[in-house]
Amino acid sequence: MTVPFDITGSSETPNLSTGGAWMAGKIMPISQASIPVTDWGLIHSDITYDVVPVWDGAFFRLGHYLTRFFRSMETLNLDPGLTPEEITAALQELVSATGLRKAYVAMVTSRGVNMVPGSRDPRDCRNHFFAWCVPYIHVIRPEVAEAGAHVHIARSVQRISPESVDPRVKNYHWGDFTKGLLEAKGVGAETTVLLDGEGNVTEGPGFNVFAVKDRRLVTAKDGVLEGISRQTVLDIANEMGLATEVRTLPLEELLQSDEVFITTSGGGVAPITRVDDHIFSNGAPGEVTMAIRNAYFDWAARPENRTEINYNS
Amino acid sequence: MTVPFDITGSSETPNLSTGGAWMAGKIMPISQASIPVTDWGLIHSDITYDVVPVWDGAFFRLGHYLTRFFRSMETLNLDPGLTPEEITAALQELVSATGLRKAYVAMVTSRGVNMVPGSRDPRDCRNHFFAWCVPYIHVIRPEVAEAGAHVHIARSVQRISPESVDPRVKNYHWGDFTKGLLEAKGVGAETTVLLDGEGNVTEGPGFNVFAVKDRRLVTAKDGVLEGISRQTVLDIANEMGLATEVRTLPLEELLQSDEVFITTSGGGVAPITRVDDHIFSNGAPGEVTMAIRNAYFDWAARPENRTEINYNS
Repeated sequence: MTVPFDITGSSETPNLSTGGAWMAGKIMPISQASIPVTDWGLIHSDITYDVVPVWDGAFFRLGHYLTRFFRSMETLNLDPGLTPEEITAALQELVSATGLRKAYVAMVTSRGVNMVPGSRDPRDCRNHFFAWCVPYIHVIRPEVAEAGAHVHIARSVQRISPESVDPRVKNYHWGDFTKGLLEAKGVGAETTVLLDGEGNVTEGPGFNVFAVKDRRLVTAKDGVLEGISRQTVLDIANEMGLATEVRTLPLEELLQSDEVFITTSGGGVAPITRVDDHIFSNGAPGEVTMAIRNAYFDWAARPENRTEINYNS
Repeated sequence: MTVPFDITGSSETPNLSTGGAWMAGKIMPISQASIPVTDWGLIHSDITYDVVPVWDGAFFRLGHYLTRFFRSMETLNLDPGLTPEEITAALQELVSATGLRKAYVAMVTSRGVNMVPGSRDPRDCRNHFFAWCVPYIHVIRPEVAEAGAHVHIARSVQRISPESVDPRVKNYHWGDFTKGLLEAKGVGAETTVLLDGEGNVTEGPGFNVFAVKDRRLVTAKDGVLEGISRQTVLDIANEMGLATEVRTLPLEELLQSDEVFITTSGGGVAPITRVDDHIFSNGAPGEVTMAIRNAYFDWAARPENRTEINYNS
């Protein structure tokens, strides 16, 4: 089979340390993992996924990610053909094969190719599960996250409504995010946050948003992915005795908050020091944000949150 | 490279008559055409496409499809790396290689793989064009279209708003359509039509909708793909001296019309005899609908609408 693109850009011996994939029970270099151009996962974005981080040789809160992934598949009527235990084994085998101790691990189930020629019926497709992992990806580049990032509120586009696509089912419908991202890059911002039709804060590409006001945390309730990192921060705040509110978050309230941060499996807790032209906590990461960020890394080290990877298998 | 799926389900000699693809200048069987699992076309549905029908050995109104395809790419800042003439040559070569004289031909440009490890910036991706074709696909199965189809108005989902994803840019964000389609199949309908947030008719998966009342044609103006088949029908109506209105079409008005039909590159003009529990023209295709349907096939045969395919190249 012709490989249309080899992202390593070389013809050297495949090196799994730049990424690998598990497809139909086989482990392969990420550059060789592909899906058919007629797969409904591509041609109808009829697919769901989840991403679990690997920190220091262990999956972080793997059970939470698997539970959400199975709930997403159930909502879309997708069958991975594997149990949670079998998927765990596949992920273990995959990460172990790459040797990566800090990794971004994607688990994906697609509607698949329609097995009846000419059929437009989703029920005629052969669903399939696959997984891939690459060295850890930060939603905000680490050097930027340390200093506090600049976020741009998208003006040309609204977040896709929950009436059209359920944001709690992790999905690849990113046309709105990408438009906002291009807008953000055009003004020199690191990333973008989208509003709903009423001007309330929703989420950004790959993260949830928190406002901190008088040591009280607020994050959007509806129209967003119920992020595992978002939940972890709510759990941490609870442990630290900080009040939390999960409810509608108008943009005006976000702009008037003391501190802003985002939560993501791609970096944990990242401070935001600028939203549009509003500067927060004198342009440096805020005190509450940094306390939570540090607690997040502590949580990642706790045995009860770690599923150890056996790299000698 | 391992082929995760071979949709022919066999290991026989590849047979292009079941479909072929053009990728990076090479022609291959459709079962071998794939894109990387990390391509933004998949993981962010950051991709646009168009589909031109081949009727009786010629592309139908190819110029119209190419113009729309290039406009879509421009809107998304996607670069196919090819001119319209080069894409025409690729499509010619592809269809000729398959020998198919009635075909569904997809042209696709994807954002591609991000060439900077860990980057979340769309501008770091390598865009790429590819094409594929299969034997002609009907949106409504021909035997059903002849008799008049049953369409279900989706209740559990609204069409994605143009404020979020521009429907005039042909896209793979089909989560709303697929949900409606599963709902439709559940009640025994052939396909689904989605409403906007105000209860107006938008479109269905792969087609536009027309209402006929007192020999006057009405179709939705906003929130829909500006279909080439839709335009062809407007052109035909003009030639036939039928009045047309392109404007907001409330569901109530659709349900009170004399006739309903859909337009699609996957079948042309298809009569709808039932929408939910409403029966049109006594359950048989209507007179105006059939006149337009026949005119559509006549138009497909006109030399000025045909780009002949050279099957001997």
